Amino acid sequence: MSELAVPKTIRWVGGPDGHVELIDQTLLPEILEILTCRDPEAVREAIVSLRIRGAPAIGVAAAMGQVLGVQGDFGGEKAAFDRAFAETRELLAGSRPTAVNLFWALDRMECCYRGHADEPVERIQEALWREALAIRDEDAQMCRSIGEHGHELVPDGAGVLTHCNAGSLATAEYGTALAVLYSAQEHGKSFKVYADETRPLLQGARLTAWELTRAGIDTTVICDNMAAQVMKEGRVQLVITGADRIAANGDVANKIGTYGLAVLAKAHGIPFYVAAPSSTFDLQIPDGTAIPIEYRGQEEVREGFGRVTAPAEANFYSPAFDVTPASLVAAIVTERGVIRPVSGQKIRAFFELSGCNAPKRY
Amino acid sequence: MSELAVPKTIRWVGGPDGHVELIDQTLLPEILEILTCRDPEAVREAIVSLRIRGAPAIGVAAAMGQVLGVQGDFGGEKAAFDRAFAETRELLAGSRPTAVNLFWALDRMECCYRGHADEPVERIQEALWREALAIRDEDAQMCRSIGEHGHELVPDGAGVLTHCNAGSLATAEYGTALAVLYSAQEHGKSFKVYADETRPLLQGARLTAWELTRAGIDTTVICDNMAAQVMKEGRVQLVITGADRIAANGDVANKIGTYGLAVLAKAHGIPFYVAAPSSTFDLQIPDGTAIPIEYRGQEEVREGFGRVTAPAEANFYSPAFDVTPASLVAAIVTERGVIRPVSGQKIRAFFELSGCNAPKRY
Repeated sequence: MSELAVPKTIRWVGGPDGHVELIDQTLLPEILEILTCRDPEAVREAIVSLRIRGAPAIGVAAAMGQVLGVQGDFGGEKAAFDRAFAETRELLAGSRPTAVNLFWALDRMECCYRGHADEPVERIQEALWREALAIRDEDAQMCRSIGEHGHELVPDGAGVLTHCNAGSLATAEYGTALAVLYSAQEHGKSFKVYADETRPLLQGARLTAWELTRAGIDTTVICDNMAAQVMKEGRVQLVITGADRIAANGDVANKIGTYGLAVLAKAHGIPFYVAAPSSTFDLQIPDGTAIPIEYRGQEEVREGFGRVTAPAEANFYSPAFDVTPASLVAAIVTERGVIRPVSGQKIRAFFELSGCNAPKRY
Repeated sequence: MSELAVPKTIRWVGGPDGHVELIDQTLLPEILEILTCRDPEAVREAIVSLRIRGAPAIGVAAAMGQVLGVQGDFGGEKAAFDRAFAETRELLAGSRPTAVNLFWALDRMECCYRGHADEPVERIQEALWREALAIRDEDAQMCRSIGEHGHELVPDGAGVLTHCNAGSLATAEYGTALAVLYSAQEHGKSFKVYADETRPLLQGARLTAWELTRAGIDTTVICDNMAAQVMKEGRVQLVITGADRIAANGDVANKIGTYGLAVLAKAHGIPFYVAAPSSTFDLQIPDGTAIPIEYRGQEEVREGFGRVTAPAEANFYSPAFDVTPASLVAAIVTERGVIRPVSGQKIRAFFELSGCNAPKRY
């Protein structure tokens, strides 16, 4: 266990032959432990086990995992290098199905590879390494830009409800939904955050409350089922979450519970915002019904806290994500600006006008 | 640890000088342990620590605790007996503030006492003992009647969502919301139950899933924040919960999370039902704003299951109950019939017409 002043969710240590270090988020908030990954299998395990999670951070991890998978001396054997690249990609692509950033990052690495395909293996390795670092740096920059575009949504003195962790720990640094709050703090605003604990894995209690309180932001943890009451009592003026994938019409896939929060926010006349980099948009998916949803094992519900909390005879149903229809989303904050109102037309116009890198398949 | 075929939530063992046995519900679903209470302090501790919980069961426990507090030989000293009675009442009344059945049962015990005040201590002791047993037996009978009145609300093949535990374990036996399901089962209906795990104390996962699966009912545990998604997927056709207190206008205080469920049910066009004995009505309280809400300590949220899941620097907000406005409640099932639609006028008429014992203060 080591202690860092400012948490770096994931970083690359060394040159093209270096390795990955990431915070093992399953041990937070009690233990801040840095995990070293020297091969793509370790990165995949870290993604599957949620040691690293959050769509943007998963994208960075996948890119770095792709670099790890093609390290070493191939003796000029391009066919072997090709095979290693493809196998690594397949290994990493199978880690989590819902986060589009994972595929976006892997596609980008593949595009980089193809752009250097005629060069010697060492040059390709270096190009891939630089590409992974660029993805990380761009992610951090994107997060800061999201914060700058979004902080005006936070009125001074507001109560803000958030769900899961769309913070520094979900990205290279700074976060998406929480970037908006960090930026509001930098602009001198006073506000109070209610963090849904976010069952089953408690990312809100373990991660969001941890990073926000470290940053000196007034944070109150509630159980997920208390959100409606907190809204009814007038304690929150906005809800803001991240997103794992956004369809062309603005439907938002995010952590299970987000959809219910959006319904509750609407019933209480509270705006529901989403903050996400433009890489989260999947314009090839017309609406939320086409977004694949990951289902997780019963043990996270049944014995998530180290104690068995439900009988073995029961069934369990555990979707990891849900889809919030665009009609419930007041605005989407991206690194290039705020999309408002949220509609397919607005999103199309946004990608055309901003010249933003809409996700594409290579 | 002992194993009972059919769980008896609470029972009296022996005559007026006997004692109380109750299931320690904090140990379920893993351990079925019977706790013996020989004085009112032990009963109070069991109520405060939620070893016994559920408004009707708390009422039975309080009545039995009142008997325990005035046992023994007072040497004909009526003043000492009086003092013991009053002290016991005060001790038990302070155990949990929201459940009206607690006060209802204590009031009924006091009424019984006053009715026998001129008799010798031993006769009063016996009368109180018989009154406590009557409260228990009437509760069991009431629960069966609730089931009989309510089972028609469950369509064959339905999915039913419930929250917390309004079952056998919340009453002397059989339950309130779950009585409706047990009765539907007896009438040969096929249905599937989704049980919200119900944070922070997981009564849904630990208790409802335990007793329903023991009864052979198909039960699926979900996290509270999955309820909206389960509704959206068309998996449930009704929601049914118990109640801790119902105001004169039909506003319902129940376990935290109930209000949010009712809002979500309305948004999905799903009827939201409440099942409760008439002793749950507090006609002296005009509406839900006057119902006192209990707040619980942060440790239940922060380290509920043997592991610290949130940083010490965070604040915690943990109301134990919320209030669902009558307008969101499609019907209230009682032991004397179904109140539908739910309004102050309907409730007044119900108590007048049914000749039902509306709660009164003595």
